[in-house]
Amino acid sequence: MRPVIALLSDFGSRDHYVGTMKGVVLGICPDANLVDITRDIAPHDVLDGALELAAAYKYFPAGTIFVAVVDPGVGSSRRGIAADCGDYRFVCPDNGLLTMVAREVPPKKVVELTERRYARPTVSRTFEGRDRFAPAAAWLAKGIQLPALGRGVSEFQRLDIPQAAVDNGSGMINGAVMRVDRFGNLVTNIDRKTFEKFGRDGIQITAGSKTVGRIVATYSEIHSGEVCALFGSTDHLEFAANSGSAAEILGLIRGAKVEIRRA
Amino acid sequence: MRPVIALLSDFGSRDHYVGTMKGVVLGICPDANLVDITRDIAPHDVLDGALELAAAYKYFPAGTIFVAVVDPGVGSSRRGIAADCGDYRFVCPDNGLLTMVAREVPPKKVVELTERRYARPTVSRTFEGRDRFAPAAAWLAKGIQLPALGRGVSEFQRLDIPQAAVDNGSGMINGAVMRVDRFGNLVTNIDRKTFEKFGRDGIQITAGSKTVGRIVATYSEIHSGEVCALFGSTDHLEFAANSGSAAEILGLIRGAKVEIRRA
Amino acid sequence: MRPVIALLSDFGSRDHYVGTMKGVVLGICPDANLVDITRDIAPHDVLDGALELAAAYKYFPAGTIFVAVVDPGVGSSRRGIAADCGDYRFVCPDNGLLTMVAREVPPKKVVELTERRYARPTVSRTFEGRDRFAPAAAWLAKGIQLPALGRGVSEFQRLDIPQAAVDNGSGMINGAVMRVDRFGNLVTNIDRKTFEKFGRDGIQITAGSKTVGRIVATYSEIHSGEVCALFGSTDHLEFAANSGSAAEILGLIRGAKVEIRRA
Repeated sequence: MRPVIALLSDFGSRDHYVGTMKGVVLGICPDANLVDITRDIAPHDVLDGALELAAAYKYFPAGTIFVAVVDPGVGSSRRGIAADCGDYRFVCPDNGLLTMVAREVPPKKVVELTERRYARPTVSRTFEGRDRFAPAAAWLAKGIQLPALGRGVSEFQRLDIPQAAVDNGSGMINGAVMRVDRFGNLVTNIDRKTFEKFGRDGIQITAGSKTVGRIVATYSEIHSGEVCALFGSTDHLEFAANSGSAAEILGLIRGAKVEIRRA
Repeated sequence: MRPVIALLSDFGSRDHYVGTMKGVVLGICPDANLVDITRDIAPHDVLDGALELAAAYKYFPAGTIFVAVVDPGVGSSRRGIAADCGDYRFVCPDNGLLTMVAREVPPKKVVELTERRYARPTVSRTFEGRDRFAPAAAWLAKGIQLPALGRGVSEFQRLDIPQAAVDNGSGMINGAVMRVDRFGNLVTNIDRKTFEKFGRDGIQITAGSKTVGRIVATYSEIHSGEVCALFGSTDHLEFAANSGSAAEILGLIRGAKVEIRRA
Repeated sequence: MRPVIALLSDFGSRDHYVGTMKGVVLGICPDANLVDITRDIAPHDVLDGALELAAAYKYFPAGTIFVAVVDPGVGSSRRGIAADCGDYRFVCPDNGLLTMVAREVPPKKVVELTERRYARPTVSRTFEGRDRFAPAAAWLAKGIQLPALGRGVSEFQRLDIPQAAVDNGSGMINGAVMRVDRFGNLVTNIDRKTFEKFGRDGIQITAGSKTVGRIVATYSEIHSGEVCALFGSTDHLEFAANSGSAAEILGLIRGAKVEIRRA
């Protein structure tokens, strides 16, 4: 079976950067099955990368190796790492990209990419994706074990990404918008479990300064011009509009406050 | 030979959606050869999807399986279908995406995707591309026969996409702009056969409110600043400019009227 | 080992064009491993294509076949060519796309794509990428030798792309901005060797009308709001900003003059 290497980055589609990384991978592991998750994480937006990576990885076959490069600190002393998380392995800069994945599948082992023989002979200080991360992933795909890539590390960077939780004092859920997708859907950090525990009877949902009146099961129940709440494909509460952008109608972006309280 | 699965959608390149679908496919059929036709159909624009799909499919090898997801009705009662059209099979929501393909190769068999075992265990009501269409295509690639996917259906949705035809009463061809491509070329629904039957002597071509004076064989015959008509790569009449956008110069978008009459 | 075919074009991601080319390739050579370098060269911008191609090719495994299509002269009398350059082969219109590659690895052999049997039966005069270049690359991948594709040619188009050089009279380096990447980095044509020969002591760097004060080794040394010079991943001098676009801050685009003189 051909090893799958899935790529996520902020390199965009215009420049040669991702193509170059794929060339490097195929030079080391010609059998690799390369799959783009996305090249279009917002430039330098590590949080966005961490969220998209977590939304995608679990749908790939066991054994998949992920290379994630959103790397504003490229060339600095921030480390490169590889992590073994359940059925998957991840190669990325140590800047928080693994935060959300690690919440779901705590890494069994993390190593720093110190072993020079598994990097390109010369490592550019502006493009470690090509010279360090792509080769490391390719060597893993070729059968090298994680510990061969470098020395084990006990800690790695985690972003302080807010989690929704029931506040028993105020009797409400404090959440936030985490992602705005291509369709203008606003995906929050309020998962179905937290929500169901709180209970859906007689609640009021506020997104930014506006009230979202109705919870539906699917986009098709939303009337024209209306914005509704529903549980989307990652099982988090999201706001959506009928044939329109909820983000535009509500005037909200990532980070906007979402509150659920008993009316 | 590795089975080819070609994907067309409006999911864009920023979000993880298409990557996730590919992960699901590879989990079921590791051998699948995944090819993107496009991820950038205009959001919810089923007509655009139907046209791009028809322009592309016939250039793929016999046996190719197409997954097309432009799905404003996701989660509603609209069905998911799989169709056997000549040398190709198609998996998509039943919303008209197959219209143009079916005009060229009428389906020999269409089934509704009712068989649960060929979907993911939980089918999201907001992302059937991942949970229903991708798995169905992967199972076809793995060797499952079309009828195994669900019960046969006798009809499927077709969009009312206008076809150009010679109007014998008025003695003219009434056509329309169907696609505007990246280069600003305006592709019409007037195919070469209809046009040749009408005859090209002494005709006047009107696009929107402007006259297009000259028919050429290739872009390179167009003078600077000029807009010409020619037969493009799908053998339909199109309007093009020299190093410029015919769409901008003529001020036209999809749907614009195109008339050919005898001067 | 599956033959790698890498694609570079200005066809964009919205239309079916690149997908169609891949379908054609797989119809001829089902084993081909298709890799996108980019679909997003600026429309008709042959120079941009020539630069991206040169930045990417050398990172691919020996044996890779490149199909590059940025083709404002499609359908005209400009030729289609295939070239054997060291470990790689290239298929493209003869319009200068090979200029930068050929400076680094002068072609050992160049042929015109005259052999009809290695093109599609009908060659569209608006889309030779699909009907001529993709099939030629696929046949090469399938094992056909370059000379089988057509008659040898002794010359091919080269763009007059400026090279930076030390001007001994004025005692300065005259260079130019060649690429602006997604992050707003401005990549010049001043390579490290030319620069080191000139010497970095007591020099003044001018980009457009502004002075760039500091040369650093990596993006992370740049202070907020500052623009610095450094050697990027292709070993050329580039200008970069901290968490910002050097292109915007300096107000420069491709072609902008870059001068290095002794202060």
